[in-house]
Amino acid sequence: MTQTQPSRLAMVPFVSVADMMRIVNDAGVPETIAAIADRIEDDFKRWESFDKVARVPSHSPEGVIELMPTSDGEYYGFKYVNGHPANMARGFQTVTAFGVLARVDNGYPVMLTEMTVLTALRTAAASVVAARHLAPRDARVMAMIGNGAQCEFQALGFHHCLGIEEVRLWDIDPAATEKAVRNLSGTGLTVTACSSAEEAIAGAQIVTTCTADKKQATILTDNMVGSGIHINAIGGDCPGKTELHRDILLRSDIFVEYPPQTRIEGEIQQLDADHPVTELWRVIDGQVPGRTGPGQITLFDSVGFATEDFSALRHVFAEMKRTGHYVDLDMLADPDDPRDLYGMVTRAAE
Amino acid sequence: MTQTQPSRLAMVPFVSVADMMRIVNDAGVPETIAAIADRIEDDFKRWESFDKVARVPSHSPEGVIELMPTSDGEYYGFKYVNGHPANMARGFQTVTAFGVLARVDNGYPVMLTEMTVLTALRTAAASVVAARHLAPRDARVMAMIGNGAQCEFQALGFHHCLGIEEVRLWDIDPAATEKAVRNLSGTGLTVTACSSAEEAIAGAQIVTTCTADKKQATILTDNMVGSGIHINAIGGDCPGKTELHRDILLRSDIFVEYPPQTRIEGEIQQLDADHPVTELWRVIDGQVPGRTGPGQITLFDSVGFATEDFSALRHVFAEMKRTGHYVDLDMLADPDDPRDLYGMVTRAAE
Repeated sequence: MTQTQPSRLAMVPFVSVADMMRIVNDAGVPETIAAIADRIEDDFKRWESFDKVARVPSHSPEGVIELMPTSDGEYYGFKYVNGHPANMARGFQTVTAFGVLARVDNGYPVMLTEMTVLTALRTAAASVVAARHLAPRDARVMAMIGNGAQCEFQALGFHHCLGIEEVRLWDIDPAATEKAVRNLSGTGLTVTACSSAEEAIAGAQIVTTCTADKKQATILTDNMVGSGIHINAIGGDCPGKTELHRDILLRSDIFVEYPPQTRIEGEIQQLDADHPVTELWRVIDGQVPGRTGPGQITLFDSVGFATEDFSALRHVFAEMKRTGHYVDLDMLADPDDPRDLYGMVTRAAE
Repeated sequence: MTQTQPSRLAMVPFVSVADMMRIVNDAGVPETIAAIADRIEDDFKRWESFDKVARVPSHSPEGVIELMPTSDGEYYGFKYVNGHPANMARGFQTVTAFGVLARVDNGYPVMLTEMTVLTALRTAAASVVAARHLAPRDARVMAMIGNGAQCEFQALGFHHCLGIEEVRLWDIDPAATEKAVRNLSGTGLTVTACSSAEEAIAGAQIVTTCTADKKQATILTDNMVGSGIHINAIGGDCPGKTELHRDILLRSDIFVEYPPQTRIEGEIQQLDADHPVTELWRVIDGQVPGRTGPGQITLFDSVGFATEDFSALRHVFAEMKRTGHYVDLDMLADPDDPRDLYGMVTRAAE
């Protein structure tokens, strides 16, 4: 009855950043985004089977730390994620994240994983899913306003999954654009660095905004947005942080992930609390139409939702087991008699 | 500018179960409970400096998975914890937990740690803190109803910090009591195995209830509770899970951690929503009296609160650095240019 070595039940597989990069590079970045997009789409179709809450934020002057839990009754997942716009200037990531997948029936975690890389992939995947249902079918050109950490993932996801052939880049910092141009060379995309947001948007059927300022910004003004485009608004994702002029919202049909969260965090925080929005899952499930005509402006007011992280966690869980790219962590106390926690602790000293 | 090895910023110190046991055994179990109790007391005294929310539960037929976040503006901490009463019969722990401490200013985690063992220690420490202010000063005998994983930690905490000389044990399963008797032999406590709850309570000035059924149970009936005792009620900690008959509550002065959470999860879920209760931190801060007379029945309706886990995390964070009992995990993506997450991923394949 004595026990000194951790048992099998004590172990939680851990996917480090290095392992995540191995998993992603084994399959390819665009292919991984496509696989996660398929899981997000499948999970949106069974939206009502998820236990959903708005994420739980802890705000500070410098940023926010959030927990994003959800469950489908079989698995439970959550993500820890921070958002600190001033981090970049100090050499830290604006967003870092990790997450856990657990079994609902016994509450035991089955995987701990980095999620900074994974969040970038799932955010692009969620944008792809929305654009599949909302963007003009003949879209070939995408403008990208904000060329930070999310930029290349969006560009490659839209290229691989939706046939986007050209991305037109603009950022207030030319170094960010140069980085994106460099990274996207040789991927099959035509990449154009632009000298203004207006120039980037010219001729684009899809406009993606992913800037990081924690303030009410106006990345797009009303006169910049022509009829018929799809706006993929990624950057506005917490109270006081928006990217689009309010007038654009009033001209658009707005699609959101989870209204109780988006009303607080999304672009629509600028609108009345009862302004009509459409839940994206209803479009994917075929309950309501997405794009209905060529002149319509569709807006995906993306803030990121826990079910998307859940879909991404499930993908990594499968890939982790398939590839063996993980290590076991002795994270759960597992005494041989569950009631003898004290005995386990004291015997360890012997 | 290329990077293949994780940088220092990518690393998060991890305290495994084995490391936690080393840390605890280096200092001793009672001494660790005492140290955590001191931190809990200090943190209760600065209660208003904490960002507080009721924990975020995900309920299922088998149990509950909860996230418990808090912050003092400098550090942010959260705990993941499950509660699955049926686990024990299947060879799993009823409660397993892990937690994270992070810096608020940049959102980066600074420690990941097992918290199954740590939760047992902090729960005992919180009970000690409450009893310091609420139990009769001359208390020497404690009854313990429920002899599961929490039992020995409570017994040793009360022995070491409050001068309890005898514990009187009872459990519906004699094997649990036998285990506790065995573990507590040689600790300086007089340990008496009893054949009923009534027998255990006879002569006790403190009654600790820590049973695990997820149902409305009546571990104590009204006639079992004499005047002047302190009840340390640990087991009732989620909706539908209580241990005490309602009549006992009506005769007691009730002290709680965080009313919005305890009203939902504690023994007082049996009472009207406006039934008077006293916040424990106000007693500790000297704002209101604790025990006021010899005939008073005091009840600590403990459900466990995030600030207590925060106090425990801070203790382990200090001990981890002092002892070196941890390993570094490559958990945070840290590209040399924070905006070049994509470049970091793809360069890793080279």
